[in-house]
Amino acid sequence: MGERHIGDDAAVLAPFVGQAVISTDVAVLGVHLDSEYFPLEDLGFKAVAAAVSDLAAMGARPRGCVVAVTAPEGTDLEELHRGMADASIVTNCPIVGGDLAQGRDVTVAVTVFGECPGRGALYRSGAQPGDELLVTGALGRSAAGLRRRRAGASLSDELVVAHRRPWPRLVEGMAARGAGAHAMMDLSDGLGLDLHRFADASGVGFVLSDVPVADGATMDEAISGGEDYELLIAADDAARLRLVFQDRGLRAPLKIGVVVKDVTQRTLRGEEFERRGWQHQL
Amino acid sequence: MGERHIGDDAAVLAPFVGQAVISTDVAVLGVHLDSEYFPLEDLGFKAVAAAVSDLAAMGARPRGCVVAVTAPEGTDLEELHRGMADASIVTNCPIVGGDLAQGRDVTVAVTVFGECPGRGALYRSGAQPGDELLVTGALGRSAAGLRRRRAGASLSDELVVAHRRPWPRLVEGMAARGAGAHAMMDLSDGLGLDLHRFADASGVGFVLSDVPVADGATMDEAISGGEDYELLIAADDAARLRLVFQDRGLRAPLKIGVVVKDVTQRTLRGEEFERRGWQHQL
Repeated sequence: MGERHIGDDAAVLAPFVGQAVISTDVAVLGVHLDSEYFPLEDLGFKAVAAAVSDLAAMGARPRGCVVAVTAPEGTDLEELHRGMADASIVTNCPIVGGDLAQGRDVTVAVTVFGECPGRGALYRSGAQPGDELLVTGALGRSAAGLRRRRAGASLSDELVVAHRRPWPRLVEGMAARGAGAHAMMDLSDGLGLDLHRFADASGVGFVLSDVPVADGATMDEAISGGEDYELLIAADDAARLRLVFQDRGLRAPLKIGVVVKDVTQRTLRGEEFERRGWQHQL
Repeated sequence: MGERHIGDDAAVLAPFVGQAVISTDVAVLGVHLDSEYFPLEDLGFKAVAAAVSDLAAMGARPRGCVVAVTAPEGTDLEELHRGMADASIVTNCPIVGGDLAQGRDVTVAVTVFGECPGRGALYRSGAQPGDELLVTGALGRSAAGLRRRRAGASLSDELVVAHRRPWPRLVEGMAARGAGAHAMMDLSDGLGLDLHRFADASGVGFVLSDVPVADGATMDEAISGGEDYELLIAADDAARLRLVFQDRGLRAPLKIGVVVKDVTQRTLRGEEFERRGWQHQL
C-alpha cells in the first residue's frame, strides 16, 4: 500500500485524511503570460502556483498535482518543467503524474489535490452578517510588477517577482480554517470582481473601510489587478484569527471591512464598490 | 463535511477509501481525433474515457474528474461538453470541476481520481514468471473503426462506435484486483508497444500463443492499432480470475500467453514479437 508516481497508468497515493479537495487550472502562453517579457519557466511556475492557491482558498493541505502539457515542436520543455518543479517544491505539492501532446499553443493544465484533516473545507458561501472581512496581504503587487516589467524593470525587481512567482497562502489558509473562519477564497481576479463573487455566494453585502494597497502599486491595481493570490477571509472571531496567525509566525491579516445582511449594500468608504476585475485576454 | 462541486475554488469530496489513484490525459483535436471524420463531441468522450481507463488499469473505482479545456472563439463548447458528460455518466465518474481558456487548438485535459478500497492498486510491474497473460477482449476494433470511417462507414457502424466511444474496463479492473491478479495495464497504444512496456516494468519476458483479433479487424490492427482500452492482466491463478469474472457476469478474459523469466524472450507463436505501436500524429 505504498505510493508510486512513475511509469504506471496512474499515480497511487496513500489514503487521504478527511475530505479530498480537487481543482484544475489551465494556463496558455500569450494569454496567462506575456512571452515578450517573461521566460517560459514563469508559465510553469504560475500554472502550478495558481492551482495550488485554490487549495489554500479551501484551507486544504496539498497532497500532489498532475500536469498536462501541450506544446509545438521545439518548445523548451525542460525550461517549462523547471518552473513547474520550482512551484511544486515551494508549495510542498509533488508532481505525481503528467501527459504531453503536440499542439500549436503552449498550454499547461494543472490539477491539484489536497486534504482537509479535522474540520471541513472552507467555502465562499459561509460569510455571515457581522463577520469581519480580512485579506492576508496588501494588494496590487502582481499588476504593478507586470506594469514595471513592461516599462523595463528587471526580472529580479521585487514587484516583477511578485508577478512571476505568486506565493500561494497555504499556511494562512490552513490557519484560518483551524481558527474557525466562516468563509474564504483566493484573490485571483482582483478584489473588485472576487469580493462580489464571495458576497454573491454567501448572499450578503459588505461595507469596506479600506483597501490595502501594496508599496509601489496603485489603488486601481489593488482593486482590479488580479493574480495577487492573497486570501480573502470572513471571520466572526477575528481576534482568534489574529492570535492563530501570530502563533504560527504569520503576518497579521489586514481588516478591510465587515459583512452586512443587505445583499445590495456593497460600499468602499461610503461609495458604491463597483464590480470590476481582471480578465485574461489574447 | 458534505461534497461540493460548483462555484468554489475547488471541489470537495467525501473522504476516499484506501489509496487515492490519480491520472491526467490531454487530447488535442486533429491529433487525438480526426475532425474531418468525427464530431467534436467524440473528442470530449474519448478524452474522459481514456483518462478513466487509467483508473481501470489500476483496479481503482472512479470518484470524479476535472476537465481543463482550451478552445478558439466560436467552438461549440456545448457539443464538446456533451461528449464529456456522456463518458462521465457511463463510467460513473462525475465531472466535479473545470477550467476554460482561449487558445488556437481545442484541447481537453482530463484528470481522474479514484480509490482502491481493500487491497492496493495493481501496477504494471508485478508480473511474475509463470503467470498467465490475459486480455479482457479481442483487439483491433478501434483501429478498424477508424479505417472503416475513413472509407465511408457511418458514425453508427459498430466498429466506428468502438473508435468513437471506447469503454473503460472498470468492472473488469476491479474484478482482477479483487481476484489477486499480479499486474495490469490498459492497452491504449497497442499490444505491440504496451506489452513490451509491461514486460519491461516487471523485468520479465513473455511467450504469446495467440493474439485475439476482433471481427472485422486485421492482425496488424490488433497488434499496433491502439485505443482499444482492453486490459492486459498477469495472474498466477487464472482459474480464480475466470471464476470472479463469471460471477460478476463479465465476459471471460482471453488467454494470450505466459510470463517467462528471460527478459529477452518475447515471442508470438515462436517468432520474435517486435516492439511496434501506435503514436498520435498531426
